[in-house]
Amino acid sequence: MSPSSDPLARSLRETLADLAEGQTTSRQLVEACLTRIEQFQPVLNAFREVHAAEALAAADKCDRERASGTATGRLHGVPIAMKDMFHGDGESAGCGSVLRAGRVPPLTSTVRQRIDAAGAVVLGTTNMTEFAYGPTGQNAITGDVRNPWDPACISGGSSSGSAAAVAARASFAALGSDTAGSVRTPAALCGLTGLKPTHGRVSRAGAMPLSFSLDTIGPLTRDVADSALLLSILAGPDRRDPATLTAPGAFEDPFAEGTAPGRSDAPLAGLRIGRPLGYFDEDVPAHEAALLDQTAELLASLGATILSVPMPEQLPLWNSAGNILVWGEAFALHAADMAEGSALSPQTRGRLEMSLALGARDYLDAQRGRGSAVRDFCARVFSRCDVLLCPTVPGPTPLLSEVDVSGGSAMMKVLDGLTRLTRPANYLGLPALSLPIGMSRSGTPFSGQLIAPPWCEARLCRVGAAFQGASSWHRMAPPLDQAVAAHPNPKKGTL
Amino acid sequence: MSPSSDPLARSLRETLADLAEGQTTSRQLVEACLTRIEQFQPVLNAFREVHAAEALAAADKCDRERASGTATGRLHGVPIAMKDMFHGDGESAGCGSVLRAGRVPPLTSTVRQRIDAAGAVVLGTTNMTEFAYGPTGQNAITGDVRNPWDPACISGGSSSGSAAAVAARASFAALGSDTAGSVRTPAALCGLTGLKPTHGRVSRAGAMPLSFSLDTIGPLTRDVADSALLLSILAGPDRRDPATLTAPGAFEDPFAEGTAPGRSDAPLAGLRIGRPLGYFDEDVPAHEAALLDQTAELLASLGATILSVPMPEQLPLWNSAGNILVWGEAFALHAADMAEGSALSPQTRGRLEMSLALGARDYLDAQRGRGSAVRDFCARVFSRCDVLLCPTVPGPTPLLSEVDVSGGSAMMKVLDGLTRLTRPANYLGLPALSLPIGMSRSGTPFSGQLIAPPWCEARLCRVGAAFQGASSWHRMAPPLDQAVAAHPNPKKGTL
Repeated sequence: MSPSSDPLARSLRETLADLAEGQTTSRQLVEACLTRIEQFQPVLNAFREVHAAEALAAADKCDRERASGTATGRLHGVPIAMKDMFHGDGESAGCGSVLRAGRVPPLTSTVRQRIDAAGAVVLGTTNMTEFAYGPTGQNAITGDVRNPWDPACISGGSSSGSAAAVAARASFAALGSDTAGSVRTPAALCGLTGLKPTHGRVSRAGAMPLSFSLDTIGPLTRDVADSALLLSILAGPDRRDPATLTAPGAFEDPFAEGTAPGRSDAPLAGLRIGRPLGYFDEDVPAHEAALLDQTAELLASLGATILSVPMPEQLPLWNSAGNILVWGEAFALHAADMAEGSALSPQTRGRLEMSLALGARDYLDAQRGRGSAVRDFCARVFSRCDVLLCPTVPGPTPLLSEVDVSGGSAMMKVLDGLTRLTRPANYLGLPALSLPIGMSRSGTPFSGQLIAPPWCEARLCRVGAAFQGASSWHRMAPPLDQAVAAHPNPKKGTL
Repeated sequence: MSPSSDPLARSLRETLADLAEGQTTSRQLVEACLTRIEQFQPVLNAFREVHAAEALAAADKCDRERASGTATGRLHGVPIAMKDMFHGDGESAGCGSVLRAGRVPPLTSTVRQRIDAAGAVVLGTTNMTEFAYGPTGQNAITGDVRNPWDPACISGGSSSGSAAAVAARASFAALGSDTAGSVRTPAALCGLTGLKPTHGRVSRAGAMPLSFSLDTIGPLTRDVADSALLLSILAGPDRRDPATLTAPGAFEDPFAEGTAPGRSDAPLAGLRIGRPLGYFDEDVPAHEAALLDQTAELLASLGATILSVPMPEQLPLWNSAGNILVWGEAFALHAADMAEGSALSPQTRGRLEMSLALGARDYLDAQRGRGSAVRDFCARVFSRCDVLLCPTVPGPTPLLSEVDVSGGSAMMKVLDGLTRLTRPANYLGLPALSLPIGMSRSGTPFSGQLIAPPWCEARLCRVGAAFQGASSWHRMAPPLDQAVAAHPNPKKGTL
């Protein structure tokens, strides 16, 4: 079996190899995950629902198929978790709210269909910010998700439970959604790899929309190779999501057996990595800036050329335009949920109220500006470099007690600080990869973000995998025993 | 040659046959059109610019190609006219305004490229409502276009000059745009056939946008067969207009040689034609209602089954939603044109001012309601009939002096009366065909509108052509000599 005796310490791809070699069974993996969930759920509140019986039955079926030689699917038998926003067969996702209970979903989500077709075992659904509208992972309705590295800290959101579950080694991977950073931010704060695909790469059909102009769906995993594998399963055209139809949607796993390049001393030779001058380098504390410098040095040692690239001065405007699109679309989707007395959290209500005065012209200007913004950004940035390296979140992870998401005036500042480096990739439709590159002084992970031109996820994965091949930040596990000891009596978080 | 000695009395398709048989030359046709334009332009103000020298040179080139056997293109050598909103090679269209003068166009329009590739000779550009934002054909900047049947009447708009030019037999066909009826309304009031295609059938790339959610481009012609021929040239996918990419865009000419069905006593056998109960039958005067009855009787005599079909009660809401989309999008496109002192007509300014308070939510709700509206309409209407028959404009053609488009409070009532039966097909994305079915008591044409499910233009053409094969309203020409005598001294309208 694996070098470690704990099957949960292995990556998804390593686990697939273990299964193929008979070193473990799907039932063993699911049982280990369920035990782990039971242990840490009271502290972390990662899961919304655990479908233990269904997962065990699915695992047994996988084990029988494997034994009889009929195992198919590239995720066959591996336990994963789904953010609670992908509608299933006749069952509505909860969406981090109580307002969707009992609804019949419009469609079964395409990503769920693809995950099922690939043979993965779904452990259950993970907690999230209500309606995915917030980057901290707090939720007054379903309880805050806590950071496995320090349960006093936010997990990041909105794919909060997905990040906590994978970081706690209670699932091998999880799906999230990213409208302004909702995959990358929790991945960054929990020490995971998170991939936000190009707009149009992955179908959103049957997923809860937050902002249909900006929503993307992506994986949270232990490492880059696992994210690439999941993307290759999720990606591709789908008639039910027109955004996927006008583009080269499919994504080939660049690390598939027989495809991956051999070992090289200079795997990034010929690649230009840009370090931003302006916008993305603002408000980064000295310790975190040094981690970015070290990352650049490591990438240079792998053959990459590191260049300084001035950022377009419109980036703050594009960030605002991204906000305006969410404001308009989230409000159109949720205005009816704002009725007096509805069980909407103060955070969600506060954010929706910001949309009340938004004019159609401002919305349409933000929408219409997107095409030229992408062209400008690519012409000015990606003419000079192939990939941009910047932080995912500029500073260390905030404490839960530091963050005010009660809908008050301080909220916008917090939200903006957490999303200003991730939102541009949504407005511009660009793919972006977050991965841990060190530890903040407070003992929580600090992550870098790689951004590439549209449809260049393979390039992101090449850089990320080379970095992870030469470093070990992605292999560090959170000190969960300490976490349990320090937070024995959480008020919320039981299933 | 043709039965008539006047080459301009022939349809486009007949003229192509005349050219092929050597009965006429492209130069003769262009010269005849230019003479006609010179004669009637002072009264009708149909053209914005006549490109006489270029058209004659193009005609001579066509004649040489024909003589040498190298003539190609399905419109080879036939003169046609373009609404002044399709950008050309390095030259911006005027768009019925003075505010676009000297601009460099973003793209050469796809429809212009396709018309050129088909070998047509473009006579020039036709006048239009400023920025296509109005259904009457009046324009305080470039002068009102007058109706060839009675120059005291409005021509209809916004493709006003296109309709007047073809009705006056000064061009064999013309292109227009239709956002709320702008092809169908002027075609209807000028006694022409006008075809609004399914949304996404014809690329809008390089055409002036009014409302990108609703804009379509279509032909104004003497008869249905000519409209079908032009649509077959204009239609089809274009990477520069994403709306054309997700759909069966191409359109095969159903009347092409070897394709057209033979003569039949019952060409409409098996076809169910619906007569609307509700909405489309409201406010239709008795005389015009009788013309619709006669049309239905004629269609029945051709084999069709005539049925009464109740209309969905949401039609007024869908009509309003169509208005809201135009309000939002036209304002986003033209807000900068509203600066104090800009040379915007009172009509355009008045309409844009209605958009000032439009909220993003109302806009998005109108946008989001479209999918279910189309599904509802098709399920409730096109389950019972194959084609709907209704008026294009409910009553007789208004006099120019009756219509107040000065931006005042009476304007909306006029606009709504002229567009309420055409706008639903834009909101619902449906194809619709307008064709003359009789004369109003005032001596101007009255027209019926046929509406079909998405992508069923061929069905519309089948019904329309059968009707025109058994009637002669489309062959009537306006009494232009009377018009010239009655209006000898127009104040505007010279080139």
